[in-house]
Amino acid sequence: MKLCRYGDVGLEKPGIVDANNVLRDLSEMVEDITPETLPFVLTMIKEQDISRFPEVKGNHRLGTPIKSVSKFVAIGLNYLDHAHEADLPVPDEPVVFFKAPSCLNGPDDDIVIPPHSTKLDWEAELGIVIGREAKQVSVEDALGFVAGYSIVNDVSDRGFQFQSSQWDKAKSCDTFGPVGPYIVTPDEIGNPHELEIWLEVNGEKRQQSNTSQMIFSVAEIVSYVSHYMTLKPGDLIATGTPAGVSLGMKPAPVWLKAGDRIRIHIEKLGYQNQRVTEQTASC
Amino acid sequence: MKLCRYGDVGLEKPGIVDANNVLRDLSEMVEDITPETLPFVLTMIKEQDISRFPEVKGNHRLGTPIKSVSKFVAIGLNYLDHAHEADLPVPDEPVVFFKAPSCLNGPDDDIVIPPHSTKLDWEAELGIVIGREAKQVSVEDALGFVAGYSIVNDVSDRGFQFQSSQWDKAKSCDTFGPVGPYIVTPDEIGNPHELEIWLEVNGEKRQQSNTSQMIFSVAEIVSYVSHYMTLKPGDLIATGTPAGVSLGMKPAPVWLKAGDRIRIHIEKLGYQNQRVTEQTASC
Repeated sequence: MKLCRYGDVGLEKPGIVDANNVLRDLSEMVEDITPETLPFVLTMIKEQDISRFPEVKGNHRLGTPIKSVSKFVAIGLNYLDHAHEADLPVPDEPVVFFKAPSCLNGPDDDIVIPPHSTKLDWEAELGIVIGREAKQVSVEDALGFVAGYSIVNDVSDRGFQFQSSQWDKAKSCDTFGPVGPYIVTPDEIGNPHELEIWLEVNGEKRQQSNTSQMIFSVAEIVSYVSHYMTLKPGDLIATGTPAGVSLGMKPAPVWLKAGDRIRIHIEKLGYQNQRVTEQTASC
Repeated sequence: MKLCRYGDVGLEKPGIVDANNVLRDLSEMVEDITPETLPFVLTMIKEQDISRFPEVKGNHRLGTPIKSVSKFVAIGLNYLDHAHEADLPVPDEPVVFFKAPSCLNGPDDDIVIPPHSTKLDWEAELGIVIGREAKQVSVEDALGFVAGYSIVNDVSDRGFQFQSSQWDKAKSCDTFGPVGPYIVTPDEIGNPHELEIWLEVNGEKRQQSNTSQMIFSVAEIVSYVSHYMTLKPGDLIATGTPAGVSLGMKPAPVWLKAGDRIRIHIEKLGYQNQRVTEQTASC
């Protein structure tokens, strides 16, 4: 099942994409897909004949597949190839930080460069969406708390990131959190650790890896984080990025600039397409 | 004006404490004090004769003075005396990190020790509550975006904090964010940089300072953070702690343990009283 939200910013409606790639409207079942309604939607939709929901004609912008989140957790340095590229030791435990929920952005919405940004970078990541409250759950049980998966671009400004020891500020500017296009439920994914993941900038492949390269697995991450804080329905965890970010480019990084185009794919999860833009007076 | 929420966990009602220290119920005006309703409450209450709201008899638990927050921002190392105590340089810019909204706790609720915690510590802090959306606001304008102030205990586990470079995990365990008892509006505070602040553990004074010792002022912090991410109504910013945390104790830290009692006061903002407890099976 692929859940999404379609429509203009702030006016999104709940939707589902069926097996024939047809978008159908879920408004008669639920007003919106939110942290509060997600468990209900997941339960109800299983019992429904999806073909009975009205087809949505035409092209529509997609919003984030969940309206908001109470926690936007992220894991740093979680790919072997990225650890090797960066010549850094493999961490003993997941490195946990947060992105601000206010940075959430539709999967194809513009990424807006903050006025004082100088080192804007990309990070394609597999996102985990939590389906039910998880507190101190075991690795064995952890996947039972996962509602589904989505693509996350963990947009980062490296200038901001290394101004102090703490990364959150560099990862949380408005529009720095594209999520979507869908929440894809685990039954459509199978093993979350055999998914191709890639990112292009202006048509050139910059990141290309596979979720098999993750150091800490989805189950280990969910279990680990749940031993520090209770995970709630709709909470989102970005699981780290593979090699190929601008920061690691030789001989020198090529930072994102206005007009650049980003395209991201994760197998079975769809595509994101973003344009990088300057802030305008109306932003 | 002192806004609060009173009642059992999950059943809190909106309240206001009048000039005679009488708690009055605001249920007829608003269902609850949330990020969504806060601007409405602030506007409406100014036009009301507070004495017309019904008095609430008896003793009641207080919850956090706002039901939830979309961002719980915190500033590290923001007191001169703490920087001197820790023998660390005064930072050039505020150090920004996040606490998880799921750690929010009533001002007098128990702080529950996570099973694997070994170095539990306290941090009394002045909290800023944002009243309206703030994006890239100047230092001169920043105080106009402040709805009020509250006490925050930025409870931290130092073992968790120094496992990796990122602090969020150590600051975000369930119950690690006592906030309250009230949101006190700026008209009752005057200058936010002449407030006594202290914290006792088991009756012994551990922290004693004044908000005049803050390195970055309330206006500077609000302005600074708003240049990285849009601040929303109800967002909370903990502004850093003065000297006297367990981490800095000589000859050795005395970490919090089950049965300890914490008492915190900030001038004009009231008191917090917490008991430290072990997690039970039902937690």
